[in-house]
Amino acid sequence: MSLVATVEGMAEQDADGPLAFEPLARSETLTERVYGTLREKIAAGQLPPGQRLSERRLAVLLGVSPTPVHDAMRRLEQEGLVYRSGPRTLRVAEHSERSLRELLYVRALLRGAEARFAAGRITERGLAAMREALNELESATAESAPEDVLAAGRRFDAEITAAADNERLQTMIESTTVIGPARRLQSVTAMATVARDIGEKHLQAHRDILAALTAGDADEAERQVVQHMLSAIDLQLAQLTEPERTEGTAR
Amino acid sequence: MSLVATVEGMAEQDADGPLAFEPLARSETLTERVYGTLREKIAAGQLPPGQRLSERRLAVLLGVSPTPVHDAMRRLEQEGLVYRSGPRTLRVAEHSERSLRELLYVRALLRGAEARFAAGRITERGLAAMREALNELESATAESAPEDVLAAGRRFDAEITAAADNERLQTMIESTTVIGPARRLQSVTAMATVARDIGEKHLQAHRDILAALTAGDADEAERQVVQHMLSAIDLQLAQLTEPERTEGTAR
Repeated sequence: MSLVATVEGMAEQDADGPLAFEPLARSETLTERVYGTLREKIAAGQLPPGQRLSERRLAVLLGVSPTPVHDAMRRLEQEGLVYRSGPRTLRVAEHSERSLRELLYVRALLRGAEARFAAGRITERGLAAMREALNELESATAESAPEDVLAAGRRFDAEITAAADNERLQTMIESTTVIGPARRLQSVTAMATVARDIGEKHLQAHRDILAALTAGDADEAERQVVQHMLSAIDLQLAQLTEPERTEGTAR
Repeated sequence: MSLVATVEGMAEQDADGPLAFEPLARSETLTERVYGTLREKIAAGQLPPGQRLSERRLAVLLGVSPTPVHDAMRRLEQEGLVYRSGPRTLRVAEHSERSLRELLYVRALLRGAEARFAAGRITERGLAAMREALNELESATAESAPEDVLAAGRRFDAEITAAADNERLQTMIESTTVIGPARRLQSVTAMATVARDIGEKHLQAHRDILAALTAGDADEAERQVVQHMLSAIDLQLAQLTEPERTEGTAR
């Protein structure tokens, strides 16, 4: 079997040619991995709204048996990322601006709850890792290095997630992810070039969140995270309505 | 096939004898119905923490094919209500007080978001139905009629859910339900007999929520719902740690 395959009828959305799928290796969490792969391709816009999805075809492309694909599709369907347009037809969901705005709002609340739960539990080691990530975030912002800004932000967030130690909440937050990594990079890049003051606000929000967690102030940690995330919704929505640009593609 | 069947090894938890399952009729939302049935039995404590669940056996008991049971179990697993204790063994999850408290907290936030979304959309007709439900709630509280208190509260909440019109959020809220109808009745009954002033607080909360929705005040509607639900968490936790009493069973 070739290492890269394409889905028929899934190839028109980008100038870069057919959509690439890496067949997955077998593992115990095959459903999780199929789910993650499809979710990422949907969030990145590579499987665009309205795209028809065949479980059987996806199983062949991913090199797995039908069951994990079936299970992953049920989860995506339950999360509203995939819907049934006919008795045997599944399609990628089309989000309205309203539904995206509401989803990002709920995501902000859930991330706030995560910070609240983390406040009582984070260790000195966790706080040290967050301080380090914040330092990197400051350097990356000063150097206008969007990839490093994203990476440092991810490390910062990961410590909150680890300290919160709540798998249920984690699953719920994951289910509200509609913006994939490439779009996120595009968004941070746009921020760095178009609105430099946003970079400073972004830094200050991280400083405030860290201060609240250091003080063990659950209310304040929650409030800061929710406020920080809500302030980004308009920017995110603006990004989502623009088509995703692939790196190196001139338009 | 007999109309009532039992699950082997699921019969010891109550003095009332083996657990009854009503075989389900075939329908398009069979997975939904299997999911709902199992979720209810878990929330009611009829399938107690640690209980082993066999997909094959459940399919036979419910009179359905293996696929909807498999799909329902994946959803319950994803929601953390069922976990894998071995490669082929699924069991009902055991909640710690911490995890229950956090779940009820997240549930309060989600219900608050629902009220926020409802505030901009609820119609005159919806508000009239809520006023009617509130009147019934007042009468039922005055008459100490727990079943009517619950029914009126459900009608009140249903109007908020309908006005919010957000299926994703609805699914998330559903996934945080850990207290089944029988336990809820027990809780309201206890409230009516042990702490009468809670009934008045409960009424006032509903009046405040309705006032905020009538005024179209999304912030206030959200705040009132969250506050109302958070105030109930300790009572709910106290109820959850007690065994559920079956109606008519003297102990």
